[in-house]
Amino acid sequence: MQIRCSPPIRGSATPPAQDTLLRCIDACTECEQACTACSDACLREDMVAELVACIRKNADCADICAVTSAVLTRQTAPDIATIRTLLEACRTACASCAAECEQHAEMHEHCRVCAESYRRCEQACTDLLAAL
Amino acid sequence: MQIRCSPPIRGSATPPAQDTLLRCIDACTECEQACTACSDACLREDMVAELVACIRKNADCADICAVTSAVLTRQTAPDIATIRTLLEACRTACASCAAECEQHAEMHEHCRVCAESYRRCEQACTDLLAAL
Amino acid sequence: MQIRCSPPIRGSATPPAQDTLLRCIDACTECEQACTACSDACLREDMVAELVACIRKNADCADICAVTSAVLTRQTAPDIATIRTLLEACRTACASCAAECEQHAEMHEHCRVCAESYRRCEQACTDLLAAL
Amino acid sequence: MQIRCSPPIRGSATPPAQDTLLRCIDACTECEQACTACSDACLREDMVAELVACIRKNADCADICAVTSAVLTRQTAPDIATIRTLLEACRTACASCAAECEQHAEMHEHCRVCAESYRRCEQACTDLLAAL
Repeated sequence: MQIRCSPPIRGSATPPAQDTLLRCIDACTECEQACTACSDACLREDMVAELVACIRKNADCADICAVTSAVLTRQTAPDIATIRTLLEACRTACASCAAECEQHAEMHEHCRVCAESYRRCEQACTDLLAAL
Repeated sequence: MQIRCSPPIRGSATPPAQDTLLRCIDACTECEQACTACSDACLREDMVAELVACIRKNADCADICAVTSAVLTRQTAPDIATIRTLLEACRTACASCAAECEQHAEMHEHCRVCAESYRRCEQACTDLLAAL
Repeated sequence: MQIRCSPPIRGSATPPAQDTLLRCIDACTECEQACTACSDACLREDMVAELVACIRKNADCADICAVTSAVLTRQTAPDIATIRTLLEACRTACASCAAECEQHAEMHEHCRVCAESYRRCEQACTDLLAAL
Repeated sequence: MQIRCSPPIRGSATPPAQDTLLRCIDACTECEQACTACSDACLREDMVAELVACIRKNADCADICAVTSAVLTRQTAPDIATIRTLLEACRTACASCAAECEQHAEMHEHCRVCAESYRRCEQACTDLLAAL
């Protein structure tokens, strides 16, 4: 797959070949929001001291998902090596966060929802890496 | 309205009072992506030299929408004065970008789509400011 | 003062008229790092539950300082209305964070150092607003 | 090297073992600013159409350097796998941008200065990867 196409502005018609890319952008964007919301919800829990690793990992992952989404959205003169390594970083961060959130998923609804979002984003990065 | 509530994680039930807030978060997130995509599409136009102001304003607005979305998503211990001034900055940036993109809307589809996104985000910020 | 000049790349000669602008960019950049470091250090304290407001405000302020620094660094076709409102948001966030960190300054060295960084950034935004 | 230490707040005393980490944080921060400034300066050149790849790569690299700096600054519960892959992405982006900017270094002072900043950041990432 070649990442060089009309920009994925919402509302524009996009060729079917772009599906994997667009799904990854959407997964990153959604995951960024879930990270930020989960991190914030953890801060409000009585047992905040036990959620410190979760809060920190969420903060990292929100940042990494945001930049991955932005880099993937830019379609002009893409640098495949940069995109590949960044997708690896995003996939790694999502997998690490998912494992963390899944430990708290039974106790905290926000961790359960967030873990699902991480797994979707991890999968979307894996799919896009395979398609590049 | 008081911004102090359960976090707006997608999939969670959220009380109706949160509608204005959630709409603003969504508008900022969508606008950030439209800015990044439009800026990138402008770079690819033959007449790029005439779109320089558009590219720069899009870059600023993408950054401002992203931070506004993140700050609004954090519900713990909100600082209303910070939220107010940030919404003013976001509204101002969106209005300025919309005016710029509207000048190119007839020639460039990405500017037309992006201008609509700016106007939605400007309105969402205005609505939330009124509800605070 | 007019914000329209050669870009403030480190190592380039910059005209003295740019001093206020460059000082504000530096203050925002330094403050962003202090916010992120202080937020992280708070997470590691035994009394993390008492530092929740500090952690959240730090997260907001890091984001706002980062975007302010980026917008000020872009010198092409600046939009003064956007810059003004963003500087107001940055000043407001810094003042709020400084007040929060100052409450913990005697107990936590990172809050003391961070509070000083906030006050410098607040002042730099105020100075630049006066010079615009 | 173990990334687990007192936070690198400016003004705090930091143990010598932290040198490689702190140098990388500083290199990322400086590089982010150089990217943003160079991208903006390119936009202002008459030959902007020939600098499109440079502008885009600068935008990506600014984002990646910013997130790398933030993730490295957070010292609590670090996830080494995430840090490693992110450093790889940052190093790759810096190398790609340096190669691009070096092509314009004789003609544009901002590209020359920016290319040096990229090479410093690339080296700092390489050094930190070796020390992890």
